[in-house]
Amino acid sequence: GKKGVEFESADKDFKFRMGGRIHADASYSSGDDNLVSGANHAEASDGTEIRRARIEMVGTFWKDWDFKSQWDFGDNKVTTKDMYIQYSGIKDFHITAGQQKQLFSRELYESSNDLMFMERSLMNSLAEATVDRAIGLSVATAHKDWTGAVGIYGETVTPTTDTSVDEGWGISSRWTFAPLNEKTHVVHLGISGNYRDPNQGNQVPEGGSKQAALTLASETSHMSNLKLINTGGIANVAAIKMVGLEANYLNGPFTVGGEYSKMWVDRKTASAGDSNLDFSAWYAEASYTLTGESRKYKKGKFYKLSPKQKFSLKNGTWGAWELAGRYSEADLNSADITGGQMSLLTVALNWYINDNVRFMADYNKTLDLSNSPITTVGGGDPNVDTFMLRGQLAF
Amino acid sequence: GKKGVEFESADKDFKFRMGGRIHADASYSSGDDNLVSGANHAEASDGTEIRRARIEMVGTFWKDWDFKSQWDFGDNKVTTKDMYIQYSGIKDFHITAGQQKQLFSRELYESSNDLMFMERSLMNSLAEATVDRAIGLSVATAHKDWTGAVGIYGETVTPTTDTSVDEGWGISSRWTFAPLNEKTHVVHLGISGNYRDPNQGNQVPEGGSKQAALTLASETSHMSNLKLINTGGIANVAAIKMVGLEANYLNGPFTVGGEYSKMWVDRKTASAGDSNLDFSAWYAEASYTLTGESRKYKKGKFYKLSPKQKFSLKNGTWGAWELAGRYSEADLNSADITGGQMSLLTVALNWYINDNVRFMADYNKTLDLSNSPITTVGGGDPNVDTFMLRGQLAF
Amino acid sequence: GKKGVEFESADKDFKFRMGGRIHADASYSSGDDNLVSGANHAEASDGTEIRRARIEMVGTFWKDWDFKSQWDFGDNKVTTKDMYIQYSGIKDFHITAGQQKQLFSRELYESSNDLMFMERSLMNSLAEATVDRAIGLSVATAHKDWTGAVGIYGETVTPTTDTSVDEGWGISSRWTFAPLNEKTHVVHLGISGNYRDPNQGNQVPEGGSKQAALTLASETSHMSNLKLINTGGIANVAAIKMVGLEANYLNGPFTVGGEYSKMWVDRKTASAGDSNLDFSAWYAEASYTLTGESRKYKKGKFYKLSPKQKFSLKNGTWGAWELAGRYSEADLNSADITGGQMSLLTVALNWYINDNVRFMADYNKTLDLSNSPITTVGGGDPNVDTFMLRGQLAF
Repeated sequence: GKKGVEFESADKDFKFRMGGRIHADASYSSGDDNLVSGANHAEASDGTEIRRARIEMVGTFWKDWDFKSQWDFGDNKVTTKDMYIQYSGIKDFHITAGQQKQLFSRELYESSNDLMFMERSLMNSLAEATVDRAIGLSVATAHKDWTGAVGIYGETVTPTTDTSVDEGWGISSRWTFAPLNEKTHVVHLGISGNYRDPNQGNQVPEGGSKQAALTLASETSHMSNLKLINTGGIANVAAIKMVGLEANYLNGPFTVGGEYSKMWVDRKTASAGDSNLDFSAWYAEASYTLTGESRKYKKGKFYKLSPKQKFSLKNGTWGAWELAGRYSEADLNSADITGGQMSLLTVALNWYINDNVRFMADYNKTLDLSNSPITTVGGGDPNVDTFMLRGQLAF
Repeated sequence: GKKGVEFESADKDFKFRMGGRIHADASYSSGDDNLVSGANHAEASDGTEIRRARIEMVGTFWKDWDFKSQWDFGDNKVTTKDMYIQYSGIKDFHITAGQQKQLFSRELYESSNDLMFMERSLMNSLAEATVDRAIGLSVATAHKDWTGAVGIYGETVTPTTDTSVDEGWGISSRWTFAPLNEKTHVVHLGISGNYRDPNQGNQVPEGGSKQAALTLASETSHMSNLKLINTGGIANVAAIKMVGLEANYLNGPFTVGGEYSKMWVDRKTASAGDSNLDFSAWYAEASYTLTGESRKYKKGKFYKLSPKQKFSLKNGTWGAWELAGRYSEADLNSADITGGQMSLLTVALNWYINDNVRFMADYNKTLDLSNSPITTVGGGDPNVDTFMLRGQLAF
Repeated sequence: GKKGVEFESADKDFKFRMGGRIHADASYSSGDDNLVSGANHAEASDGTEIRRARIEMVGTFWKDWDFKSQWDFGDNKVTTKDMYIQYSGIKDFHITAGQQKQLFSRELYESSNDLMFMERSLMNSLAEATVDRAIGLSVATAHKDWTGAVGIYGETVTPTTDTSVDEGWGISSRWTFAPLNEKTHVVHLGISGNYRDPNQGNQVPEGGSKQAALTLASETSHMSNLKLINTGGIANVAAIKMVGLEANYLNGPFTVGGEYSKMWVDRKTASAGDSNLDFSAWYAEASYTLTGESRKYKKGKFYKLSPKQKFSLKNGTWGAWELAGRYSEADLNSADITGGQMSLLTVALNWYINDNVRFMADYNKTLDLSNSPITTVGGGDPNVDTFMLRGQLAF
C-alpha cells in the first residue's frame, strides 16, 4: 500500500514495515559569477543531485518493543539516520535508546518528506550543527493536546576523528501545546531547550557528521556548497545553550507560523580574546492550498496534506497544489566571530500528485546580506538567487 | 519466487519487489611478472573479489508511478546505481527522472546478470567514462519492433570534487529496430548518439564515480587494476560527441552480433597544442547454446537464456551450457594523446544452473597491443592473459 | 515473527528472510587519565556508539541453492559481512562460495547476537587479524554429534590498497565433537587449524578490513580505540600457522568452557634480525542463568538462551537473567616483537527481555599488563578498567 510494504502477525504482536524515499533535485543559481572567498574563486554549483535516497525498516516485536532503522545513501556514501530501540509498554510513554533526533525545533523535527520548502530555513544554521541526530536515551509522553520529552545524548554515529578523546554530551527537551486542536483548525505552541558540552577535541556533532569545532553556517542549496553566512570553526567552546520558541496556526487550506532560536556559547576562559557569544535566527512562513486541502497535525507534529483527488490523465484530475512563502533571518555575528547576517525570502509551489509523489519548485532570493565571508571580486556583497526543482517519491 | 520477493495489492495498483545479486569472482593473470608503468612496478592483481553485491527495490504506486532504487556494495563501499521515479501513465511511454543509464550502446545497457561475458568489451573504454549512469530526465517509447528514447542529464550522484564549479551536462538518444522479430529468430539494429559538455572543472562522470578529466581506459579485469590501454586525463575538453551502431542476429541457440563506437573530442582552442581528437572501438561476438536454449529478445533488449531443465543431482539433469567468443578492438591514440591500441580475444563457457544461479569461466587473450603505457622491464609490449571464474546468484 | 520477515513459496522451493540487528552501546573507562603512547597522549574514548547495525537477506532458490548477504552500517560506513552462495543439494553437506567466516575458533564463529559478553576475549587478538571473514570456497558436513569443514580463501572484500600485488591466500579447517549431547547436558570439543600466506604487499585480511602488515592487538572496547597490547605491523611475514582447541560443558543453567590458540609466524629469511615468532592466547569462561534457562547447542554451535517468560509489566514477569565471568590472557611478545602481555577479567550481567531484545552490562578489569606500548606519563603500567552497556535488538 501507500505506506510501503507492511506485515503483521495474526495476533498483531509483530509488525514490520519497509519504507523509502527518493528526492531527485536540480538547482540553478544566478549572481554567483564573480565571487571570491578570500583569495579563492567561489561559486554556487549548478546541477543535479540525489538529495536523499533512504531506506527504512521499522518493526514491532512482542507488542511493546519497536525499532527503527533508516539510512541515507545520497552522495554515494551511507549515513545512519534513525537507529533505535523503543519501549512502548507504558501507556502514552515512549522510551527510546539509540540514534535519534535531539529534541529541539518543529522545523528540524519535521520529516523532509513533509516540509513545505525544499530546504529548511536560515534558522537551521543554529540547529543543524547542534541538535540534529545523536545517540542517546529519551523519554517522551504524547497526548492529544500536549507532548513533552527529555533526552540525554552522546554524539552521532560518526567515529571520533580526534584520537582518544572522550565524547561530548548534551541534554535537550521539547514541549508542545495545542490550545485549539480541531481537525482543520489548530493553534500549536512549542518551547524547547538544549545544553551541550562539546568533546575534549572541541567537536560538536553536526547533522550526521562531526566537525572539529562548532561551525554555524547555511548553504544556498545542498548542491551548491556555497555558504554565504559561515562562522568557520569557533574554538575553545566550553558549553552551548539554546532556547527555541514555536507558534503555528492552521485554518483549513491556510497556515501561518514561525520559530525563533537563540544560542549562547560559553568559551573557555583560559583563552584570552575568546569572548562568550550569542547568536539568533528565526523564520516566519505562510501557505495556502489552492485545491483546498488542509495540512495535518497530530501530537505536536505537522504533516503534509493528502490530495483529495490524485493526478490522473484518464480522469482529468490534477492532484493538489500548494503555494508557500517564508522569510528567514540569521545573525551569526558576535564579539570576535563574524559569520555574517542574512535575510532570505523563499517562495514555493508544490504539486501533490498523490500520497506518495510530489514535485516542488523553490525560488530563494537573498534580501539582505552583510559581513559575509563571500564577496564579489570588486569587494561588494554578493546577491545570489537560487532556483530549485525536486521530484519526490516517498512511502 | 525466482524474481525475488514480490507483493501486489488486490487492485494491482501497488506493487513492490525486492531483488539482489551476488557476483563472486576469482581471477588469475599470466605474463604480468616484469611489467612497469613508467618507473613503477605494475602487475595484474590475482585474487578474489565480490565483483557485485546489489540490492534493489522496485515498486509501483497508484498504478502509474514506478520507482527503482539499486545499490552496489562491492569493495566495502556503497555506489548508487539506478535511483529514479518513473511515470507510465501514457501508453507505450515512460518518463524517467533521477539516476539512470544514459542512452548509448546495447552492451552498456544490458544488465550484468545477462551479459555473456564476465566483463564488457574493449569498446566499453569509450562508453564507461561518458555514457554510464547520470542524473537526468528521459522520455522513452517502446513497441514490439522498435524503441526510441532521448534523455538530458547532469552528472552522477558522486559529489563534485572540485569546489564550486557548475556540473557538466549531456544529451543522448538511442533507437532500435527489429525487422525480423520472432521468438527465436531475431534481427536487431540500433543507433545511438551522445553529446556531452564537461563541467567547468573539466570533469566527466565515469561509471558511478567521476574523474578530474576525461580518461579512457580498460582494465584487464576489475580485480587487476592493470590498464593496458589508458589515455590518462585528457585536459581542456570542450565537448564530446559519440555515435554508436549495433547489429545482432539470433537464431535458436546461435547468436552473432557486434557494435561500433566512434568518439570525437573537441578541445578548447585557448590551449595551444591541444588538438581535437577522435577515438574508435568495436567488438564482434558469437555464442552457441550446447543444450539448445535460445537467448531472449524484448523491446530492444537481450536477456540471458532460461535452462530447459535445471541442474539437479537427483534427477540427473545438468542445466544449460553456453559457449561464446568475442573479438574486440580499441584505438586510444589520436594527435597528442597516446593511450595505446589493443585487440583482445575472449572465450567464455557459461553454466546455467537454473534461472537464478550461473557459473562463468572467461579466458582473455591479448592479441595485439601497441603504444601501451605499460611495458615490460626490457621495454617491449606486455602480453597479459587473464583467466576468470564467477559464481552468480541473481533475482 | 521473531525471526524477522519470512516468506516461503507453496512448494517450499523458494524461501526468503530479512533480518537485522541493532547494538547500541555506551562505555566508560577509568584509569586512563595520564596515558601516553610514545610521546603522544593516549586515552580510552568514553561515549556512545552504534556498535553494530546490520541488515541481512537470506534465501533459498530451487530448494538446493541458498544465499546470504549481510552488511554492517556501523560508524557511518558499509562493511560487507557474509556474502555467499551455498549449494545444499548433497545430504548433510554445504558447499559455500563467497565471503564467509574462515574456519577457526568457537568464539569467532559465534554470532555477536549470541555471545555472553559484549566483546570477544583477548584470544581474539590472534584470530581477528587472520581468520575472520574472507572470500573463498568451503565444504562442510554437519551431523548431530560431529561436524567437519575445510575451506580455501583469498582475502576480504576490501580492495587491495597496495597497487598491483597479488592477494594472499589461506586454508583452514575446524572439527567439532559432542561426546555427550542431550538437550541441556552437553560436552563439546573442537580443534581447528589455519595456514595463511600473506600477499606480496605483506597484507593480511583483518576483520572486514585489511592491514599493511600482520598486526595483532586488542582494544579495551570497540569505542575506546585504546590498544593496551599491540604488536604494531610485523614485517616480512612468510607464513602464519595456527592451531586452536575448544572445550565446553553445559549442564542446565550452568556452562563452563574455554579455548586456546597458538600462532607461529615464519619470517622471510632475507631480512636479517626478523626471527620466526610464536604467540598464544586463551580464555576460560563460566555462566549461570539465575532464572533457570539453558543455553542451546546444535551441530557444533552455541546459541543464546530463550527466556521462559518474557518481560511484561502487565503480567509481572521479568524475562531471564544471566551472570557470566571470563578470564583471558594473551602474550604478544616474541623475539624482536614486543606487543605486551595481558590478562583480563570480565564480569557480565545479561537481561533477556524476550527472544529479540537483550540488555547487557560488562565490567572489564585489567588484572595484569606488562610490556604494553601504552604507559602512564610517569612510565608505569596502565591500569584501565572499562564499564560497558548495550541495548540489543536482533531478528
